[in-house]
Amino acid sequence: MRVVISIGGSVLAPDLDARRVEGHASVVETLARDGCEIGAVVGGGGVARDYIGAARDLGANEVQLDQIGIDVTRINARLLIAALGSQVDPKVAHDYEDAGDAIRRGDISVMGGVMPGQTTDAVAAALAEYVDADLLVYATSVDGVFSADPNTDPDATKFEEMTAAELVDVIGDIEMNAGSSAPVDLLAAKLIERAKMRTIVLDGTDPDRITPAVLRGEHTGTDIIPEGGDEPTYWAP
Amino acid sequence: MRVVISIGGSVLAPDLDARRVEGHASVVETLARDGCEIGAVVGGGGVARDYIGAARDLGANEVQLDQIGIDVTRINARLLIAALGSQVDPKVAHDYEDAGDAIRRGDISVMGGVMPGQTTDAVAAALAEYVDADLLVYATSVDGVFSADPNTDPDATKFEEMTAAELVDVIGDIEMNAGSSAPVDLLAAKLIERAKMRTIVLDGTDPDRITPAVLRGEHTGTDIIPEGGDEPTYWAP
Amino acid sequence: MRVVISIGGSVLAPDLDARRVEGHASVVETLARDGCEIGAVVGGGGVARDYIGAARDLGANEVQLDQIGIDVTRINARLLIAALGSQVDPKVAHDYEDAGDAIRRGDISVMGGVMPGQTTDAVAAALAEYVDADLLVYATSVDGVFSADPNTDPDATKFEEMTAAELVDVIGDIEMNAGSSAPVDLLAAKLIERAKMRTIVLDGTDPDRITPAVLRGEHTGTDIIPEGGDEPTYWAP
Amino acid sequence: MRVVISIGGSVLAPDLDARRVEGHASVVETLARDGCEIGAVVGGGGVARDYIGAARDLGANEVQLDQIGIDVTRINARLLIAALGSQVDPKVAHDYEDAGDAIRRGDISVMGGVMPGQTTDAVAAALAEYVDADLLVYATSVDGVFSADPNTDPDATKFEEMTAAELVDVIGDIEMNAGSSAPVDLLAAKLIERAKMRTIVLDGTDPDRITPAVLRGEHTGTDIIPEGGDEPTYWAP
Amino acid sequence: MRVVISIGGSVLAPDLDARRVEGHASVVETLARDGCEIGAVVGGGGVARDYIGAARDLGANEVQLDQIGIDVTRINARLLIAALGSQVDPKVAHDYEDAGDAIRRGDISVMGGVMPGQTTDAVAAALAEYVDADLLVYATSVDGVFSADPNTDPDATKFEEMTAAELVDVIGDIEMNAGSSAPVDLLAAKLIERAKMRTIVLDGTDPDRITPAVLRGEHTGTDIIPEGGDEPTYWAP
Amino acid sequence: MRVVISIGGSVLAPDLDARRVEGHASVVETLARDGCEIGAVVGGGGVARDYIGAARDLGANEVQLDQIGIDVTRINARLLIAALGSQVDPKVAHDYEDAGDAIRRGDISVMGGVMPGQTTDAVAAALAEYVDADLLVYATSVDGVFSADPNTDPDATKFEEMTAAELVDVIGDIEMNAGSSAPVDLLAAKLIERAKMRTIVLDGTDPDRITPAVLRGEHTGTDIIPEGGDEPTYWAP
Repeated sequence: MRVVISIGGSVLAPDLDARRVEGHASVVETLARDGCEIGAVVGGGGVARDYIGAARDLGANEVQLDQIGIDVTRINARLLIAALGSQVDPKVAHDYEDAGDAIRRGDISVMGGVMPGQTTDAVAAALAEYVDADLLVYATSVDGVFSADPNTDPDATKFEEMTAAELVDVIGDIEMNAGSSAPVDLLAAKLIERAKMRTIVLDGTDPDRITPAVLRGEHTGTDIIPEGGDEPTYWAP
Repeated sequence: MRVVISIGGSVLAPDLDARRVEGHASVVETLARDGCEIGAVVGGGGVARDYIGAARDLGANEVQLDQIGIDVTRINARLLIAALGSQVDPKVAHDYEDAGDAIRRGDISVMGGVMPGQTTDAVAAALAEYVDADLLVYATSVDGVFSADPNTDPDATKFEEMTAAELVDVIGDIEMNAGSSAPVDLLAAKLIERAKMRTIVLDGTDPDRITPAVLRGEHTGTDIIPEGGDEPTYWAP
Repeated sequence: MRVVISIGGSVLAPDLDARRVEGHASVVETLARDGCEIGAVVGGGGVARDYIGAARDLGANEVQLDQIGIDVTRINARLLIAALGSQVDPKVAHDYEDAGDAIRRGDISVMGGVMPGQTTDAVAAALAEYVDADLLVYATSVDGVFSADPNTDPDATKFEEMTAAELVDVIGDIEMNAGSSAPVDLLAAKLIERAKMRTIVLDGTDPDRITPAVLRGEHTGTDIIPEGGDEPTYWAP
Repeated sequence: MRVVISIGGSVLAPDLDARRVEGHASVVETLARDGCEIGAVVGGGGVARDYIGAARDLGANEVQLDQIGIDVTRINARLLIAALGSQVDPKVAHDYEDAGDAIRRGDISVMGGVMPGQTTDAVAAALAEYVDADLLVYATSVDGVFSADPNTDPDATKFEEMTAAELVDVIGDIEMNAGSSAPVDLLAAKLIERAKMRTIVLDGTDPDRITPAVLRGEHTGTDIIPEGGDEPTYWAP
Repeated sequence: MRVVISIGGSVLAPDLDARRVEGHASVVETLARDGCEIGAVVGGGGVARDYIGAARDLGANEVQLDQIGIDVTRINARLLIAALGSQVDPKVAHDYEDAGDAIRRGDISVMGGVMPGQTTDAVAAALAEYVDADLLVYATSVDGVFSADPNTDPDATKFEEMTAAELVDVIGDIEMNAGSSAPVDLLAAKLIERAKMRTIVLDGTDPDRITPAVLRGEHTGTDIIPEGGDEPTYWAP
Repeated sequence: MRVVISIGGSVLAPDLDARRVEGHASVVETLARDGCEIGAVVGGGGVARDYIGAARDLGANEVQLDQIGIDVTRINARLLIAALGSQVDPKVAHDYEDAGDAIRRGDISVMGGVMPGQTTDAVAAALAEYVDADLLVYATSVDGVFSADPNTDPDATKFEEMTAAELVDVIGDIEMNAGSSAPVDLLAAKLIERAKMRTIVLDGTDPDRITPAVLRGEHTGTDIIPEGGDEPTYWAP
């Protein structure tokens, strides 16, 4: 089974804490021992937010801010690599071909951001598509996709399951509301739809929730199921 | 005045025709002579469509298809460079920093696509933001932004003027309809909104329509005007 | 057995046709299953010719034309990679070291052109030399080396077998005649001579002719045999 | 006059504060307006220290820690670039040739670290040597070179002036004492000696102290004067 | 006037001697002061020959030998750069675009070899074509093109003037004779013919012979004149 | 057992001699057959010295001289690669990540210099640290570390064994004496100390002395033993 895990910055590095990174590395190693081929994409977190804030005050434009954010995600990728054992490609992959090649050779590959204008959410979806992953997991700070931003809308309800087309609709709506934030961004949602990619969005604050979700489909977040798909065969007994 | 021109593949190279490329090069040179600093971003056109079709038949995934498309846009960029005189940076810029640096040094810079998952529409918007352009022009095959895809919806009406937020709404709606195509894609629209970028969408089939649009704001397409903005000062007498 | 196959653009992609690429991919996979280590070098074909024509009309110089041609060969290489299974290096090799390294690791490697001034014929010969190939095969649009260009000279006779020195002579003569075209170019012929490389030139329009030629030396084209060489041992029973 | 300024991480970014970066950018712009050609090399500061601490806890080796440190210095370089106007090379220089080329073309160039095993102190000395600078300034957190680490040895006395050979001796002695830290490291000191480079070490906490030091040699730190040298001619009236 | 000068390794560095390099640098600087735009391509010389001999003894293949030769030419290029003043691009150009861009910006550009399978003779011809040079000069160890290798054939006679087609014929004949060496190689000759490039082959052992040849067409070597061409206008009074 | 071997230029290539390189390649192959994972770092030798002398006469600065020296070490690395069989990574590693990755995949990796300001001594120490080597061996022209430079001080005595801290002291003292040369340089010594790296300094003029030193700790040079360390377990029976 081949899986791409997107570990949001707010989950991996809200602040710099080796134990949190260690926890996520443990999960990745457990999955690899269980036979998963793994690509991990990490976000920026608190340091990215601080740097971007400072750079914005200094007059940086949005593309420059994105580049700074990408740089920070790649340092976070170095942290995760340091925490992983000898099975990880020691280089942070800067494009899909490098990541795909490492996975093809049996390594775990770790990426951060790639290019201005794309979040690491979108990178994870594109990587999943590129390596033809069986599963894409978003470990975020909220436990699934809601009908609206649960932080700003008390009536938001969680989807247990939805199609990729529904995901695109819901994210599109949330993003229209200034101040609201979606668990994955619209470009990512569209890539998921395009690739017909089986996807799980879950709360990754506790990394141990990721393992049962990947190995057995057990989680309390949201399953995004490509049209006409049903329970993946790799979870069938 | 600094301007980024996105020349869609359907406009520059629906098929390979040196005269059409020559026409666009003439416009760029005219604008440069008039004192404009220019970044041009070119699309893929018919060759890209053919290659992508063949690659899809061969089992390529969407990221690989994007990469093939990017390669073709960069060959198209070489054509435009060949047609431009000595003021153009002879290298196709592969990222915003290279393009921005060339423009800063007084060269015309030509880009194609940059990364899988992003159209050249989005590249043009990001470049415009990066170089802090005064104006972004989309030379497309339809003359402006319509309320729906005019090819599929007879009730579609053209916007003469709209805000960037309206653009995002309209494009979002059009993209929801399978089979419809928007003059610029959603990621580009969002980048335009984020950058508060003065933008014109016009029919660039006849390249001569671009010059008056850039120099004097005269065109029959759609003006996208950042909130609170009014007629740009560089057009005032 | 290690083999480098040069698939001419006129053979792989006279026009864009997925089935033709698929046919060549099948041959490469068959050979790989039979235990061959394979480097493939692909040419430009009809798209290259069209782009080069347009660029020449736009005033591009010969080096720029070569670069456009190289770009097209690399897209063709992407097509062949897409058609090949998981055993191919997913990156188009841009130099001999990358190709050689991929082959050394057990992958099929696909290249296009490398540098202005060198055809893919010459690239194939240099790659064969670099990886110390047992056999170099040119799949071209004519079935072997003739004493003159068979398209322009009715008295041209085919060589069943010739030395590399004879190849250089014959190609040199053909190239002196403006308007004539040789099945491999002079630089390639000289590299074959330098490397004392066992080489076959055959009609690759039907890719199925390549397999018996590689595996058993059966073909109706021309064998180029290094001085003092005789039937290769890997074909002996 | 050509000057290389090393802005230590503890001075530029003890924590992330746009105003502090702004202050240093102002100084650089003032000097540039006064006709100086400027290369700036920035250190890592608090973020580097935090990341390195986390990575060490995760088992990273010293080279990996250096690489993380280098990445952070380059983000700090992006901040300084954002704060500088249009005269700065928008790319962080990754080697001496790029920095030297930018300076030669009239741009301000900003570097961070270059390679594991070298501090940004050493990078600044090597850059000064490479561009044949008239002056190298270390803006550090202590106001000059002391006979010992003033933080750990109350008898430490400041040198007003010293030769490069004396600098190497003093730094060598300080570095032998575990726990002590020198204002520049030994490799940098040796490069200064090798290049016979006029150098000032001063307290850069208040960036405004840098301007008079560069323009008129006025400061309260330490002058390192190559053997046989005397007051530089560019300060003579 | 734009000129590309190929300085053969046997002329620049038969052995390592700073004065000889200095002499060639003087010529280049004189020409630049006279208003010439200059690209210089340098060969490998004695060190290349020694390294290639050692590598051949160690079992290196021809491509690896070429790569070693290229590396040495690039070190020789560094020597020439060191000897040239501030007007030279301090980076050795590794491809035609970099060299062309440097020349376009007003720098002298220095190249060595580019790719296995091509001599620096061919690189010089391709660079001349790429930058649309007015003149290509080969500073070699023999004073012009002879009807045969003058070192091996006493009846060899020098051409004062010849067409590019004649050059290709003559070189082709010389190269057929094992043990003979031509002043430029066949690929270079063919590139000269393709580009219709005005070319001079002369004895560059004494670099001072290059200046009058470039500035006034005065030399005792061979003029290669494109079909239908006559005395270049830039030499007319 | 993982070992990094630094083969000084004065040992590998005092002059160019294929047999000497062959001898070192034999040792590396013997060790690899015995199960060692090997990184080799080679110096510049006589060719580097000659080129640096010529470049200094031409006015090159110290960084340019370093770059020329690095180029030569990389050609020497190509020689060693040519002499090694198919188990070596055919590319000269240019940074620690590439070397470490090759070793991790089971290849022998060969490096030369990396960056101006660092000798290959320091590169070897950093590589040893990066790949977490069990042993670092310096094959130099003197048989161990002496209390002073034995070439200039008749009272110099050899250390049979010393701590890394003592090494740093001794090297620091030797380097203070102009004209003296130490078997490894100070930056390397400090990296050895930082990494607590088991190190042997021995006379590598006869390469056969390296094998027993690596496999059984048998040699007449100097053992540098990290504080609190004792005989390595991999040598225990």
